[in-house]
Amino acid sequence: MAQKPGIPKGTRDFSPTEVAKRKYIFNTIQRSFELYGFQAIETPSFENSSTLMGKYGEEGDRLIFKILNSGDYLKDIDKDISYAGVVDDIKNLLLNGYIEMKERISPDSMLFKMDVKDSRFQSSWYKGLYSFSDEQYELLSISKQELWYSLTRYAQIINFSEINKSMGDYFMNNLVAKCFSAYLKKDFYKKTSKFSEKALRYDLTVPFARYVVQHQNDIVFPFKRFQMQPVWRADRPQKGRYREFYQCDADVVGSKSLFQEVEFIQLYDAIFTDLGITTTIKLNNRKILSGIAEIIGASDKLIDFTVALDKLDKIGKEGVVKEMLAKGITETAIEKVQPLFNLNGTNQEKLDQLKVLLSGSDEGTQGIEDLQFVLENIMKLGLKSANLALDVTLARGLNYYTGAIFEVSANDVKLGSIGGGGRYDDLTGIFGLNNMSGIGISFGLDRIYLVLEELDLFEKVILPTPKVLFLNFGADEAAYCLKAVKSFRESDIKTELYPDSAKLKKQMNYANKRAIEFVVMVGSNELENNTYTLKNMNTGEQTTYNLEELLKAVQNS
Amino acid sequence: MAQKPGIPKGTRDFSPTEVAKRKYIFNTIQRSFELYGFQAIETPSFENSSTLMGKYGEEGDRLIFKILNSGDYLKDIDKDISYAGVVDDIKNLLLNGYIEMKERISPDSMLFKMDVKDSRFQSSWYKGLYSFSDEQYELLSISKQELWYSLTRYAQIINFSEINKSMGDYFMNNLVAKCFSAYLKKDFYKKTSKFSEKALRYDLTVPFARYVVQHQNDIVFPFKRFQMQPVWRADRPQKGRYREFYQCDADVVGSKSLFQEVEFIQLYDAIFTDLGITTTIKLNNRKILSGIAEIIGASDKLIDFTVALDKLDKIGKEGVVKEMLAKGITETAIEKVQPLFNLNGTNQEKLDQLKVLLSGSDEGTQGIEDLQFVLENIMKLGLKSANLALDVTLARGLNYYTGAIFEVSANDVKLGSIGGGGRYDDLTGIFGLNNMSGIGISFGLDRIYLVLEELDLFEKVILPTPKVLFLNFGADEAAYCLKAVKSFRESDIKTELYPDSAKLKKQMNYANKRAIEFVVMVGSNELENNTYTLKNMNTGEQTTYNLEELLKAVQNS
Repeated sequence: MAQKPGIPKGTRDFSPTEVAKRKYIFNTIQRSFELYGFQAIETPSFENSSTLMGKYGEEGDRLIFKILNSGDYLKDIDKDISYAGVVDDIKNLLLNGYIEMKERISPDSMLFKMDVKDSRFQSSWYKGLYSFSDEQYELLSISKQELWYSLTRYAQIINFSEINKSMGDYFMNNLVAKCFSAYLKKDFYKKTSKFSEKALRYDLTVPFARYVVQHQNDIVFPFKRFQMQPVWRADRPQKGRYREFYQCDADVVGSKSLFQEVEFIQLYDAIFTDLGITTTIKLNNRKILSGIAEIIGASDKLIDFTVALDKLDKIGKEGVVKEMLAKGITETAIEKVQPLFNLNGTNQEKLDQLKVLLSGSDEGTQGIEDLQFVLENIMKLGLKSANLALDVTLARGLNYYTGAIFEVSANDVKLGSIGGGGRYDDLTGIFGLNNMSGIGISFGLDRIYLVLEELDLFEKVILPTPKVLFLNFGADEAAYCLKAVKSFRESDIKTELYPDSAKLKKQMNYANKRAIEFVVMVGSNELENNTYTLKNMNTGEQTTYNLEELLKAVQNS
Repeated sequence: MAQKPGIPKGTRDFSPTEVAKRKYIFNTIQRSFELYGFQAIETPSFENSSTLMGKYGEEGDRLIFKILNSGDYLKDIDKDISYAGVVDDIKNLLLNGYIEMKERISPDSMLFKMDVKDSRFQSSWYKGLYSFSDEQYELLSISKQELWYSLTRYAQIINFSEINKSMGDYFMNNLVAKCFSAYLKKDFYKKTSKFSEKALRYDLTVPFARYVVQHQNDIVFPFKRFQMQPVWRADRPQKGRYREFYQCDADVVGSKSLFQEVEFIQLYDAIFTDLGITTTIKLNNRKILSGIAEIIGASDKLIDFTVALDKLDKIGKEGVVKEMLAKGITETAIEKVQPLFNLNGTNQEKLDQLKVLLSGSDEGTQGIEDLQFVLENIMKLGLKSANLALDVTLARGLNYYTGAIFEVSANDVKLGSIGGGGRYDDLTGIFGLNNMSGIGISFGLDRIYLVLEELDLFEKVILPTPKVLFLNFGADEAAYCLKAVKSFRESDIKTELYPDSAKLKKQMNYANKRAIEFVVMVGSNELENNTYTLKNMNTGEQTTYNLEELLKAVQNS
């Protein structure tokens, strides 16, 4: 049964050329990571859901890909449906007056009559079997079956009633269905945990934190690790946004030293210089942002403030002001912020202006000192190609940066940032290991790929195409060629033998399509004389050689 | 809230050393793959369920990790619960006499009375609310809600009854719960498809087939690809068996040429020689097995025959005979098979003996010719370290091999096979592209890792540890060191600066734990004189140098 094959949205196949180009980027990044003393670790593709859920905000949980439990993941659903929370739910029903107990249906019965009291549930049950709103059903949010089960169990504890049959039954059955669905849908994620206990990595930072805590006794601190692995997010796919993509992160945990900020800037510079991309590295510090918020009297709205400010590039000054006002930041405060939009000059000059602006804030002043240290050391060491730019509006929308914040963009290609990072205190606290300061940077592989394509910088990539193809003119000729093929491979030359003695035209076509530089032909002549005819596919030149000459000719090309 | 972190069973974290060792294996394999003209492709971690399900047998479907649909995957469950198959189920109930229709409950009502007729469902409903067996409930396999919904919809079509209240209600409610669960559990996999439309790769072969068909217009045939990516299986974890593990495969599709069988044997030989592992490559051909089955009159039991025969190493001759008898292969047939257990001598001699045995089978004879071709060419070319061994009992338990079958094991370490593969015709037929012959081999990365550990062959692995650590005796000294660190890195030496001016003992401890070869110390003396003191951590030697000498000293070590 033939099916037209495809792949899930947001995913990609990579052809040999794409793989080679991507590997080129990975290898370039890895080379510098290792020169700077970072070592690779790898973590599993799926973690326990408890490790990932709740770490990325509400949006994050929704975007995490969950893995269905193996085997019969529905086998406990009986119990779940029947017993979960029943006692409490029934108590609530009674307490809230939705249901009222009546007398026993018969003196020795364990069952009781019950009236559904709440008028919201009483009306028009004949006509309105389907007319109750979802909300009304949600209020009960238990199934009739749960009621029944609990009746028999609860009967000794509290007087229950058999549900009033004449009106209640139809009502209740409809209610049951709706409640049942509501029950299933309620606490969506709690239910999900019965179906799923594992989830695919959403990023590399939380797994890293988990790794550090789990292996803390085997790790030497400060711990410098890099990780280049895929992560998965159920985002809506669009250009440049995929559901499966690589992250390339380097982080250090266990030291607060600002020398690391200096090193990371050097690292960005080294890697992008190697790749041939001229960049601007924006630098800011969370304490600066806190300081500004403090000075203008908007400390309680720090997040709103930084989120708005971060959009300066996108929505302009008016847009930022508008958003701040909308979030309740006063006009007076915004007035005070104006100078921020007018910082100019060199980084040092900007910093000097800031020093004045933030002189009233301890935290802001500390932020300035931090930036000063970094700036001075970078100036002493110099950068190869990157331009370091102080940018006090940079926030990157992340809550967990507590110190330096970085963002890198390509000067010659406008497509958003191609790297970013910063310092965070206490990332590992979520897993029980406190007071671990860390700092890390990330590289946007897919965007870097686009930049390199745009700037035509993939020339350096060695494509995996073979250099030489031995044509196949028959079993004897081919067997004879295999010896030469062996020598070529032992001399580190990528070589192939065309497997079938197909028409010459077909074999040449194959060589052309695969962009193979050389073709070797062995016919009866060559076979007799122990020679090989080499054809250069670019120039068209053909020369006959013995094996030793043949090898040299190709090696020297 | 601190949680003790862990990872799902069957998964692993890899430390820097483990990553380096694994990369060493991957790189060694990749090097030869590329020398032989193979090129890497990569496919997504998850495929559409329809691509993977049903391709690996029943066991396979159960072991595939399914990914929960994003968003509210339960939103359609209402409809699903309420309406699916209701009409048919009710018809069945009526036809089978479980429920009997009665009169309308009132003249203008749309609802009818119904009696539950079948005595299996009538008895002891007061006492036996929980006493019905699962089977009895399964018989109905619908929910009461479905009944009710269908009543109102079906009423005009067929006369239904309101369920007899006095006895039916309690019975029915209990029944409802049970039926509902049964409903959910029924057609387990059909239900699963409502929750899940994607699944994690189970191997690389099916994705490869899907890739070939999907991109057939962009591929040059014969297509030689390799893939080294993780796959996931919900197997029960044990030693050497993980839920996430890498597969390393090289395949060619689009040619039937036996030269490829020859090349794959050379490829196994080249790679294991590079790794330092002496191997035995077992070779067989499916046509030989078919031929044998034909000769002994057990063609209709080919699978049972080959499965039993393949166990020869594990359960011995008696065990194999016993299993064949159990599967209905006659004693006479097994008698005829005896010579197989006694094949001896060189590969050629074994082949000659087989030629006689299989002279009565066309397919068997063809298989012998295929093996002859391969054997001859390998003998002409020679192998570097591998031992090629004809083994007519080799089947590898896979149904899809149609020609050559390979299996590789390490001579010096007994842990099962470390590689295997074979020829398969028409793999891509499942996706609509017929007549694509293919052949491929696979490497068992985790087992190879164990073999290398066992044989102490990881010495060649360059661990990612830095070579030099500059100690930190204060901000000025450290800033001064950063210049030297920069020079070292630009000279390709992995170098670190200890980030904090911690106690000397702590810094040296760090250097020792990380097995760093050299430490550079800069105190006020060195600062004044523009020098650096280099300490060799192995010998303990300490020498003071200027920057140029320092660099040379480390480079020449």
